[in-house]
Amino acid sequence: MIFIGELINSSRKSIETAIEAQDVQAIQQVALIQAEAGVDYIDVNAGTFVDKEQEYIKWIVQTVQRVTDKPCAIDSPDPKVIETALAVHQGTAMINSISLEKERFEKLLPIVAGTDLKVIALCMSDEGMPETVDDRLKIADKLVNGLLQNNVKVENVFVDPLVQPLSVNNNFGMEFVLAVEQIMTRFEGIHTVCGLSNISYGLPARKFLNQTFMVMAIARGLDGAIVNPLDKKMMASIIAAEALAGKDDFCMNYLKAYRAELFA
Amino acid sequence: MIFIGELINSSRKSIETAIEAQDVQAIQQVALIQAEAGVDYIDVNAGTFVDKEQEYIKWIVQTVQRVTDKPCAIDSPDPKVIETALAVHQGTAMINSISLEKERFEKLLPIVAGTDLKVIALCMSDEGMPETVDDRLKIADKLVNGLLQNNVKVENVFVDPLVQPLSVNNNFGMEFVLAVEQIMTRFEGIHTVCGLSNISYGLPARKFLNQTFMVMAIARGLDGAIVNPLDKKMMASIIAAEALAGKDDFCMNYLKAYRAELFA
Repeated sequence: MIFIGELINSSRKSIETAIEAQDVQAIQQVALIQAEAGVDYIDVNAGTFVDKEQEYIKWIVQTVQRVTDKPCAIDSPDPKVIETALAVHQGTAMINSISLEKERFEKLLPIVAGTDLKVIALCMSDEGMPETVDDRLKIADKLVNGLLQNNVKVENVFVDPLVQPLSVNNNFGMEFVLAVEQIMTRFEGIHTVCGLSNISYGLPARKFLNQTFMVMAIARGLDGAIVNPLDKKMMASIIAAEALAGKDDFCMNYLKAYRAELFA
Repeated sequence: MIFIGELINSSRKSIETAIEAQDVQAIQQVALIQAEAGVDYIDVNAGTFVDKEQEYIKWIVQTVQRVTDKPCAIDSPDPKVIETALAVHQGTAMINSISLEKERFEKLLPIVAGTDLKVIALCMSDEGMPETVDDRLKIADKLVNGLLQNNVKVENVFVDPLVQPLSVNNNFGMEFVLAVEQIMTRFEGIHTVCGLSNISYGLPARKFLNQTFMVMAIARGLDGAIVNPLDKKMMASIIAAEALAGKDDFCMNYLKAYRAELFA
């Protein structure tokens, strides 16, 4: 599993406050704690600051990278913000995200073309949000082929098939996980990723439902997750599911997690 | 999900004691508590009593059926035991189980042929236990076709693809769940079922691993489970997974379980 730690996001009150106060220590602490929890990428998002998003994302990237060598996932729909962050980022960043929305696609494509950047390809277009497996595959095909034709390696592409709430439609869970399976089959070596909390929108016991959905997605091939790495139950679910999916040789990660009392 | 309550099994010490003492109340209490927890079938097993299995299974069926109208799942590899239980059973029982082992198959087939009995078809043959998806499908094909040719309706067949321990082979989880998917696709209207605790044999945190595996099997189509219906975490996992799998209209069961504090 490729883990993207989601905690440095200005939609979280404590992060928004830390960014506004330019509180280096607060941001670095959240970066470090996620790195120690084993994330592969540290998501950085200053999206709530409409006018200052560029300035702040640059500061966050620099602040984070002074204490950890984990790469950042630059989280913004705005190509200018992404370029600003990339200009100061050390190592190979992830872009979160490109989509098939015309303007976003056209402006971000030249930024990733021919590079080794990792890129999340969000299944969204100007026609709106996908509902069915087919909706997702149509968008994924165009997005992925667009990236491949521009010399992005397939293994650097992370398709996010876009989770929709189960409370809106009973089939939205399966439409998502079946899309994961199809995408993983169709493009050999590609990755799939998602932030899945949207699945439980409007329902109670959301954390439990989110964990259960993560396990189902892993059963269908999901290999990337945007998560809170401090959420023990979620991490335990992922580690157990990966072992059961045959992706953990000799159950070594599972046993290590057990010894670290993750299942306690 | 079709639930088979597993608690009346003489391999459990308290049940063995109750059977030996012919303790009517003790057995009836375990039957009632499972019926109240919503099982569809009450498994009855006196397998540890080699010489008295026939006598005891008859007593258990009669004892259980005096307090609940839930049908029993007659749990024995011995056709004589099954016949004895069926002779006193009211309503339509489930047989747990027929297999492709020659003697067991030949003696049990006439008992279920042309009846409305439910029957668990265990993917085991005289050549031993299946390991791969293909192993399981070969056995399932012969078993299911044998039953269908003898006028057993497809919707009365519950294939158990047989769970093998993950600790023995990293692939044993996926080989099982992929077999579930193939069987559900190949025979329209059939059911799949399993007692899945064998998956975690030899590993720590078994209950959590079992729950996670159940969710993965549901993501691949499993629609029957032999479970302890008093295991809140397992029941919560099943109910959440079924909602996510689109099998719970308007998430009614999920919401009901939430109100009953199953996710607490």
